Amino acid sequence: VLGAGSWGTAFAKLAADAGRDVTLWGRRSDAITAMAHSRVNDDYLPGTRLPDGIRPVIDAAEALDGAGVVALAVPSQTLRANLADWRSALPTDALVVSLIKGIELGSSLRMSEVICDASGVDPARVCVLSGPNLAREIAAEQPAAAVVACTEESNAEQVQHACAGPYFRPYTNSDVIGCEVGGTVKNVIALACGMAEGLGFGDNTRASLITRGLAETARLGVALGADPLTFAGLAGMGDLVGTCTSPLSRNRTFGELLGRGKSLAEVVAATTQTAEGVQSCLSVQELAHRHGIDMPITEHVVRVCHEGMRAADMVGEIMGRQVRSE
Amino acid sequence: VLGAGSWGTAFAKLAADAGRDVTLWGRRSDAITAMAHSRVNDDYLPGTRLPDGIRPVIDAAEALDGAGVVALAVPSQTLRANLADWRSALPTDALVVSLIKGIELGSSLRMSEVICDASGVDPARVCVLSGPNLAREIAAEQPAAAVVACTEESNAEQVQHACAGPYFRPYTNSDVIGCEVGGTVKNVIALACGMAEGLGFGDNTRASLITRGLAETARLGVALGADPLTFAGLAGMGDLVGTCTSPLSRNRTFGELLGRGKSLAEVVAATTQTAEGVQSCLSVQELAHRHGIDMPITEHVVRVCHEGMRAADMVGEIMGRQVRSE
Repeated sequence: VLGAGSWGTAFAKLAADAGRDVTLWGRRSDAITAMAHSRVNDDYLPGTRLPDGIRPVIDAAEALDGAGVVALAVPSQTLRANLADWRSALPTDALVVSLIKGIELGSSLRMSEVICDASGVDPARVCVLSGPNLAREIAAEQPAAAVVACTEESNAEQVQHACAGPYFRPYTNSDVIGCEVGGTVKNVIALACGMAEGLGFGDNTRASLITRGLAETARLGVALGADPLTFAGLAGMGDLVGTCTSPLSRNRTFGELLGRGKSLAEVVAATTQTAEGVQSCLSVQELAHRHGIDMPITEHVVRVCHEGMRAADMVGEIMGRQVRSE
Repeated sequence: VLGAGSWGTAFAKLAADAGRDVTLWGRRSDAITAMAHSRVNDDYLPGTRLPDGIRPVIDAAEALDGAGVVALAVPSQTLRANLADWRSALPTDALVVSLIKGIELGSSLRMSEVICDASGVDPARVCVLSGPNLAREIAAEQPAAAVVACTEESNAEQVQHACAGPYFRPYTNSDVIGCEVGGTVKNVIALACGMAEGLGFGDNTRASLITRGLAETARLGVALGADPLTFAGLAGMGDLVGTCTSPLSRNRTFGELLGRGKSLAEVVAATTQTAEGVQSCLSVQELAHRHGIDMPITEHVVRVCHEGMRAADMVGEIMGRQVRSE
C-alpha cells in the first residue's frame, strides 16, 4: 500500500487482517519510522493498533518489490508525480488498485486513467475500490461492503480475494467509470451537505441535497460512459450517503466549518487532512462543462470554495433551484 | 386537516403560513380543546406556536364543511374506519390529500386506494404528498421540498398552490404508486437502520442498509406499476435518507430501542407515537410475497418485530446477505 493516510492505513490493516503480507509506504519518513515502533499511525488513525502483518517502509521501491497487488492511496493531485518516481520499481505483473477518489486538474482524467497514463500499466490490470467505507469505522473492524471494479473480471476477482476478510466484503463490478465518478463527486456533495449543516439546516435539507447530488452525479457519469445502475449501488448512493451523513467524513466536516462562516484559508489551517472535494469540485466542473452537463450543486461548491461566495447564499440558491427539476 | 399528530399539525401550520384558512380536527377532544386555548400541540409538536389561520375543531363534519382541500393525517390502519364516519360530510368537489404512509393490512391497499374505496372519491381527485419532510423541522420553518402526486395533473397543481409557502416547496408528479410505495417501505428500512444503530453499527452499515433498502423498495414499486425514476427522487431516496438518518425519525428511534435489546412491548410502552413501520412491514411483506419480490430487509424487520428474532442476529444476516446482490 502506497500512502499512509487514514484510508491507506485502514486498507493496509484490513488486508493484513485478511491474511496478506502488507508493506505500507508513506511520504514522511519520520512518521513511518515512528509507526514501525509504536504500531500506531498517530497522525491519521490514532488509537488503532496495526496488525503484525503490516511492515511500514520508507522506501517505495522496497514496498513495490515483489508485490502482487499494489494499492495506491495518495492525494489525487500528487498521484502523477508519485507514479513518475515509482514507475521503474512497479512489478510488471502486479495488479494496481486505486483507493483514490478524484479527477486530475487540467487533464480531467480519472485516477485509473492517470495510473495508466503515468505508469504505462495496462487498463485491464487497474482496479478501483469504492463504497461506503469510512476509514475509522473499518479500522474499528465494523462490517463494511465495497465494490472492486475492473474492466477485466478475473482481475477484479483476484483483488476481491486479496482483501476479503472477517469485516470487509468486496464485490466485483465492471463499471470502472461509474465507480470513479461516484467516488469523486460525492466529496463535492459532502462539502455542500456540510455547509448546510454548518448553517443550521436540518435533515430535510440534507436529504434533498443528497438526492439532487446523486442525480447530478449520475448525469455526469452517464455522459462519460458509466452504467446508470452503478449510481444506485454501494459505490454510488452507498458511498454518497455514508460520506454525507457521517460525522467522520472529512469533506462533510470541512464544509461544516465553511458553513459556520470560516474562510477557506481558515478551514485549511484548522484541518490536518486533505478535503478532496475542494480540488475535485474544479475538475468535476471542468468535466461537466466539457460534456454540457448541468451540475448546480457542484457549481455552487466551486463558487464558495474558489470564488468567494458565502455558503449562506449557496444553500438558499440550491434549495430554491433544485426543486424545479423534479 | 384531519389528524392532529405531528405531521398533521405541521402540515396545518405550513398551509396556514401559506395563507390558507385551516381547520384541524383531532380524535382526542380534550387535547383539541386545550390546543385551541394554548395554541400549541403539546403532545405531538411541543414548542411550536400554531398560526392564527388554524382553527382546531372537535367535530370532523365542521372541519369538512366547505373544505376545498381535505388533508388526511390519521394512522394508516384506522383510515378506513375514519372515512366511514366522515364519508357523508366530505364535500363532493373537494380534493383529498393523503399525508399517510402505509399499506392497509389484509387488503394490501395503498392509502390512496383505501381513500377511494372507503369514501367513493374519484381516484383523479386523490393526491399524495411525500418527500423528506420531518415534521419537527418543518414546524421550525426549515426549508423543505416535497412531491404532490396525482394521476390528474391539474389537481396536483391545485394542491401544490394550496400548500406552497415561504419554507415549503411542493412539486408535482404523476406517479402516485411510486410515491406511496416509497413512503411506506422507508419506514420499514428506517426501523432496520435504527436497529443497526442501537446495536452500535456505524455509518458504513447504515449507508449499505439505505442503499439496499432503496433497491428492494424500487423492485416492489416497479412490480406494482411505479416509475423507477420516482425512487431516485425526493419521494424515494430523499424521504428514505431523511428518515433513516434523522434523530427525529420515529421509526428510526423505535428501531434503535429494539437494537438496544428491548422487546417490542417495552418499546411500544416507552414511545408515545406510532412507528408506522411496525405494522407496515407486515403489509409490505404481504405485497412482496404476492408479487414474488425479494425484500430481505423487510423480511428481517418482520422477523424482529413479530417473530421474536433478535435484532443482533438480523443485522449480521442482512449485511452478510445484501452484498451477494451487487
